[in-house]
Amino acid sequence: MSKRKRVVLSLKDKINIIESLKKGETALDPFPNYGTQKVYPVADTRTGTDGAGDSTALDMGSRSSLHSGLHMSEDEHWEMNYHEAAIYLEEGLNNEKFDSHPSSPEELPAYLRVHNPWYHGLDLLASLVLILLAFTEDPAVPAFMLPVWAHGTIEILALAVIGIELHLKLKWIGWSTILKHKRTMMKGITLLIMLLEAVVVLCRQSSHFRVTRALRPIFLVDTRHCGGVRRFIRQILQSLPPILDMLGLLMFFVATYSLLGYYLFSDHIDNGHFKTISDSFVSMFVLLTTANFPDVMMPSYAKSKWYAVFFILYIITVLYVLMNLMLAVVYEAFTRIEREKCRALLLHRRCATRHAFRLLVSRRAPDVVRLRHFSGLMRHYAPHISGLDVYLMFKQLNQSGSGGLSRSEFAGLYEVFALRWGAQASRAPWYSSSPLEPIGRMAATAVRWPYFEYLIYALIVGNGLAMLIRVCQAAGDLQSSAKLLCASWDTWLFLTLFLIEAGIRMMASGLRNYVESGWNVFDLSVTLLALMGAVMLTIAPTLFIVVMFRPLRLMRLYKLKKRYRDVFGTLVLLSPLMSSAGCVMLVMYYFFAIIGMELFAGKDLKNCCQDTTVKDFYIYSENSSTALGYYYLNNFENLITSGVTLFELTVVNNWFILMNAYASVVGQFSRIYFMVFYLFTMVVLTIVVASVLEAFRFRIQYKRSTTKRDEEKLLHEEVHTSWEEAQRLGATGELAEELRPYLPPGVSVTFIGSRPRTKEVLQRRMYQSDIHRWLAEEDDNEDRVPSTTVTSSEDPLAPPLIRDGGQRQLQPGYQL
Amino acid sequence: MSKRKRVVLSLKDKINIIESLKKGETALDPFPNYGTQKVYPVADTRTGTDGAGDSTALDMGSRSSLHSGLHMSEDEHWEMNYHEAAIYLEEGLNNEKFDSHPSSPEELPAYLRVHNPWYHGLDLLASLVLILLAFTEDPAVPAFMLPVWAHGTIEILALAVIGIELHLKLKWIGWSTILKHKRTMMKGITLLIMLLEAVVVLCRQSSHFRVTRALRPIFLVDTRHCGGVRRFIRQILQSLPPILDMLGLLMFFVATYSLLGYYLFSDHIDNGHFKTISDSFVSMFVLLTTANFPDVMMPSYAKSKWYAVFFILYIITVLYVLMNLMLAVVYEAFTRIEREKCRALLLHRRCATRHAFRLLVSRRAPDVVRLRHFSGLMRHYAPHISGLDVYLMFKQLNQSGSGGLSRSEFAGLYEVFALRWGAQASRAPWYSSSPLEPIGRMAATAVRWPYFEYLIYALIVGNGLAMLIRVCQAAGDLQSSAKLLCASWDTWLFLTLFLIEAGIRMMASGLRNYVESGWNVFDLSVTLLALMGAVMLTIAPTLFIVVMFRPLRLMRLYKLKKRYRDVFGTLVLLSPLMSSAGCVMLVMYYFFAIIGMELFAGKDLKNCCQDTTVKDFYIYSENSSTALGYYYLNNFENLITSGVTLFELTVVNNWFILMNAYASVVGQFSRIYFMVFYLFTMVVLTIVVASVLEAFRFRIQYKRSTTKRDEEKLLHEEVHTSWEEAQRLGATGELAEELRPYLPPGVSVTFIGSRPRTKEVLQRRMYQSDIHRWLAEEDDNEDRVPSTTVTSSEDPLAPPLIRDGGQRQLQPGYQL
Repeated sequence: MSKRKRVVLSLKDKINIIESLKKGETALDPFPNYGTQKVYPVADTRTGTDGAGDSTALDMGSRSSLHSGLHMSEDEHWEMNYHEAAIYLEEGLNNEKFDSHPSSPEELPAYLRVHNPWYHGLDLLASLVLILLAFTEDPAVPAFMLPVWAHGTIEILALAVIGIELHLKLKWIGWSTILKHKRTMMKGITLLIMLLEAVVVLCRQSSHFRVTRALRPIFLVDTRHCGGVRRFIRQILQSLPPILDMLGLLMFFVATYSLLGYYLFSDHIDNGHFKTISDSFVSMFVLLTTANFPDVMMPSYAKSKWYAVFFILYIITVLYVLMNLMLAVVYEAFTRIEREKCRALLLHRRCATRHAFRLLVSRRAPDVVRLRHFSGLMRHYAPHISGLDVYLMFKQLNQSGSGGLSRSEFAGLYEVFALRWGAQASRAPWYSSSPLEPIGRMAATAVRWPYFEYLIYALIVGNGLAMLIRVCQAAGDLQSSAKLLCASWDTWLFLTLFLIEAGIRMMASGLRNYVESGWNVFDLSVTLLALMGAVMLTIAPTLFIVVMFRPLRLMRLYKLKKRYRDVFGTLVLLSPLMSSAGCVMLVMYYFFAIIGMELFAGKDLKNCCQDTTVKDFYIYSENSSTALGYYYLNNFENLITSGVTLFELTVVNNWFILMNAYASVVGQFSRIYFMVFYLFTMVVLTIVVASVLEAFRFRIQYKRSTTKRDEEKLLHEEVHTSWEEAQRLGATGELAEELRPYLPPGVSVTFIGSRPRTKEVLQRRMYQSDIHRWLAEEDDNEDRVPSTTVTSSEDPLAPPLIRDGGQRQLQPGYQL
Repeated sequence: MSKRKRVVLSLKDKINIIESLKKGETALDPFPNYGTQKVYPVADTRTGTDGAGDSTALDMGSRSSLHSGLHMSEDEHWEMNYHEAAIYLEEGLNNEKFDSHPSSPEELPAYLRVHNPWYHGLDLLASLVLILLAFTEDPAVPAFMLPVWAHGTIEILALAVIGIELHLKLKWIGWSTILKHKRTMMKGITLLIMLLEAVVVLCRQSSHFRVTRALRPIFLVDTRHCGGVRRFIRQILQSLPPILDMLGLLMFFVATYSLLGYYLFSDHIDNGHFKTISDSFVSMFVLLTTANFPDVMMPSYAKSKWYAVFFILYIITVLYVLMNLMLAVVYEAFTRIEREKCRALLLHRRCATRHAFRLLVSRRAPDVVRLRHFSGLMRHYAPHISGLDVYLMFKQLNQSGSGGLSRSEFAGLYEVFALRWGAQASRAPWYSSSPLEPIGRMAATAVRWPYFEYLIYALIVGNGLAMLIRVCQAAGDLQSSAKLLCASWDTWLFLTLFLIEAGIRMMASGLRNYVESGWNVFDLSVTLLALMGAVMLTIAPTLFIVVMFRPLRLMRLYKLKKRYRDVFGTLVLLSPLMSSAGCVMLVMYYFFAIIGMELFAGKDLKNCCQDTTVKDFYIYSENSSTALGYYYLNNFENLITSGVTLFELTVVNNWFILMNAYASVVGQFSRIYFMVFYLFTMVVLTIVVASVLEAFRFRIQYKRSTTKRDEEKLLHEEVHTSWEEAQRLGATGELAEELRPYLPPGVSVTFIGSRPRTKEVLQRRMYQSDIHRWLAEEDDNEDRVPSTTVTSSEDPLAPPLIRDGGQRQLQPGYQL
């Protein structure tokens, strides 16, 4: 475990902490009582009594032994335990390892310094600045060009910020842990190199060959906000072994066929595709992407039709069989990893709740967490949550109705935490107590009219037809036809009708419910966009891009069919993963763009490659009248151009033209760059395809096994309670005050909690039986751990400490 | 149900039947006793007694009522029941509907005429001839060109054969059934049209615009041998609705973007990609396949870098999101259909066994099938199976040991039928009773030597390294380097070593066991191929194709790793489906090739398209020295060229060049042909990908849930028996004679039955729980069918007839 400082905090430290925490208090303060405490005393040994009768917490043995001499009040003691339990819960939520958990109160300030939104924000900002520097460094995008001293200074500053933050983190985690933590290690080393290089650049006042800039995204990926990206990268790394195996098989075939191709075709006049064995290999590698397909075959095909057999066989084996098998292998691995991830997360969270649990039980009732302590925990863990919500969460967790949460009940905390509560009474229409009631009632009647939906669909179809007619009329002048399409009287008519529809719906269900449906938001925004488009086209008739907005309304029709709803639902489900995948692609682009710029920037491709097959694509003429002569634009002049060039390489079609051009201008070795990039994109894209497949299958299976009713039950929970019950459960003081307005005495009130339909919720349902097995297995494992490990309370899974409700933690230092 | 002829068979008919059956008897005759019986009497009502004591079969009510007046011997009566039960089993095996089951003895001759290998063979031959005619008809492949009268006559003949066969089939099935049978209907109509057209061609002595020739594969697909192809086509048709939905979504985006593209780019000088709305649509459609990717963007990109956003967004939405979702949707549908297929087949087979079962029970024991009747059934169903196998199958089926098969035991018939039996004693090494024993023993010791495998792998690696060195040496003359690579001393050395290895393995395990392992066969054939190659290269030094064979040996290395074994195992599992998919592709190619030839044959593409962007690809020079000028070869001159052209379209890269050329030479409408072909191939290839994914996932899941031991148990069954038991079970007469050599009296013998690892066996294991549910559901359904349907014995599922062991079938006409 990490180092433990036994020294008392220095005065400066204390002031720092107090100030930083006081600042926090005005915002959402997770540690309200810290500032008044100064020193963190643990495990008070005097027994006190309070209203609920349970007073002394069973604390971690190690801490109590450390601080057995310190005196603190009962409440302070509890606050500190709440605090630590909240930290555990947060670590569980963020899937952080418990080995960086603050192991003693002295480490807490450092921990808090590193775990606050300012730190994370600064970290993100510095790494973004660092990444964006590539726009300003030579070769820069012209608009953003900066002199060397300027971007050099910015770089040093950003690196310094990251360095200081890393230092803070190291102080808290300790060196011994960091060595096990590869990511932070790598970050540190990269930081050192970059700092050195930045200094060199500032001294020499010119950039050298700095490919290490390609590593800048490391800092971004390491920030708190990029957890999804890190997970996706981990998933890629875990999928790599099967991919590499399949690549090996693929390359074997490529090599064998290129050998054969060399012997068959090397003495033909065939544009040099097979002149040497390495030419042959490159040709076959490109053929793997089909980019040069008929071209590479045509010269031989002209000689004898039989040569087609060679190419057809190659394409069938490599492209249609092996590539598909590769996808299958990756898909299989992906599905397995996805399941494994779900399991790990689940167990980690359960472990976090167990750690928290044993900090919240008292000696009198060592098996249950009382409402008082639960709300104390929530005050630290989620200060923005109202007392009512906390009380309802407690009620919902306490399925047994015993008045205290058992360990297994407490483990459901994360699930319950996602619920948003509302009194059942509030399900009445919004206008029930509003002056707009008659209008609202009429609107609601209109929407409930069975033909309302059909009417709207008819309107949409009408709009589509009108548009189609306009398109067919669109002869002659571009501007007038655009106006005809997007700003004629029928546009206005339909837009008005659509706005009326949106108004009716809004009146019927209230703005809040209206906005909750994705389709409504889509409708409204598309209508508003089309309106904006029509207005803008009237003002600026050359702004053609707005013609896009009118057809979009047609997409509403896709809501009609179940399959489309599935597809769009999958897209929504996929969006977090997809955005992570997008970020990974961007990081990869950045990496390769920097390398590409360092290698190829400044090479002029105009009229290049005179003696190769691709020369036609690079013929340059001032007035751009030639057919194919634009390829010189696909270069690595600056970050944006590089990005577009890399996208073209990703799409694969004609990528060999770019490769051949640079091979002829810069040197044959540059082929390696392009081939490696192809392999990288192939891997990432294959995984993206696998993830889409998996998500869709998952959603369909979920839909098939879950009826609308099941889902309603899955996403909603009901809690019946009353003021009297709240009193009985121990809602006193502030909490009671908060509950009073919602719980009139003597009446039983029903609250409905609803959770959003996230992937996790669905997974929990789909893996139901697996989850039971995993938990059972985990319990078995815990049973097998011998009880001698009791003292290592920071053990990530800390099983024996937990099993019997904390009684075993009674350490020698703990005076009963 | 089909018509029932009550007339007695005419003399001519009888003779025909007898003769056809006598011919059959010399081959594998499934109806040995038919010829001696002449008329088919059913349900003899006199009670006889035989050794086993159970004599009168409970026959189908309808038949017994038809023939209650006819007299026949006990044995004849049973033979006829065996016969019909065998037909049921065959129908179950081939997944044929029971509504074409011969419903009365008079229909049997027609049924037999249509169900014999000669009929099927002739059918296949005629349809193949018909298909191959396309090689000889104008535009013909030069080598196969035939005059019009010749191919016209052949066509008429082939059509006549098919027509006669269709007539025979119709006679047996009856018109009322045929009308429900879409496939046969379509076949009949196509046949009529073709016959008409063939006559017209013969009369006019020249071919007219005959696109109907594209329908010829219908006849081929309808033959008995193309069951897999039919199933695959059905699977495609079932997957079509989701695909069409997704295509609709795709096309919406293509249309919207092409509208936008038109407005954005139509006034640029952009090579006409966006000149009109239809140009714009074609460009965007081609961009969907990425075939014109950077080209379509470059002119706009040269104007402003921002235009790249339009293309990048389009490609991301359409290609990376929608296309992947399409694959996901298809994959989902495919998995569902696959499961459904498995269920339907299972239930159909069970139904077949039930139909057969009630023909095999006697009145004395109406719940069980005795060995005597079981072997009678097998005499008809599988005459080539030995008496021992029949007996062992019976024993294996009779898990209860009651001496008679209950209905549920009998339902396992198909499973048990796949087993191949051998006495356990025969598992001793082959050389145990051979003069080669010492050599065999030595070889076995060598193979069992723990380092033997490693030695072989080292040899293979050595061979690979030697090859690599030779490749690196391969400078200068092509012939000598090929010789160096494939016929130098090291080649001979390694070949000899490999041959020795094969010899040792063969001696160790015996030829039969050696050949049973796919890897061994691969090893041996690759070694022999390499040997052949080396010899041929020595004889004819320009035959470079043989250089392929030496590297192949390296593939053996892939056996080392589990993942590769999985991959190759999947390939084996997939091979039936893949060959069906291949056939479907060929049929599709044929279809489009005929249409393509009718539309485009004879158009000269040399130097065409002068004012389009693709003109460079069609520049023709006599000495073929230009870079890109070979595309004129991609035409529809004859069937073979068309095939290659269509393959190029399948690969998609640069397909728009071909499309644009024909659009400019023949007319804009020809784009439709190319676009439709693209959509067709996309659909088929997507389904192929889905099937690969499914098969791989299936196999991996199977492997994960099944240990080696489980698999051993799954693929092998054990039966212990003895002569005495066989006697007790009623093995008399011929059967007893056949059993005597294998079952020495007084000794218990163990037999091992092993089944091949087919997909069905794996499915049965993987869907275990599903299968139980399906069967239970089916039983429930049966319970719900009211018992009034008793008389309709030809009802495909005939449930109530079966449920209580046949007692309900006692019809009024049946005299007890």
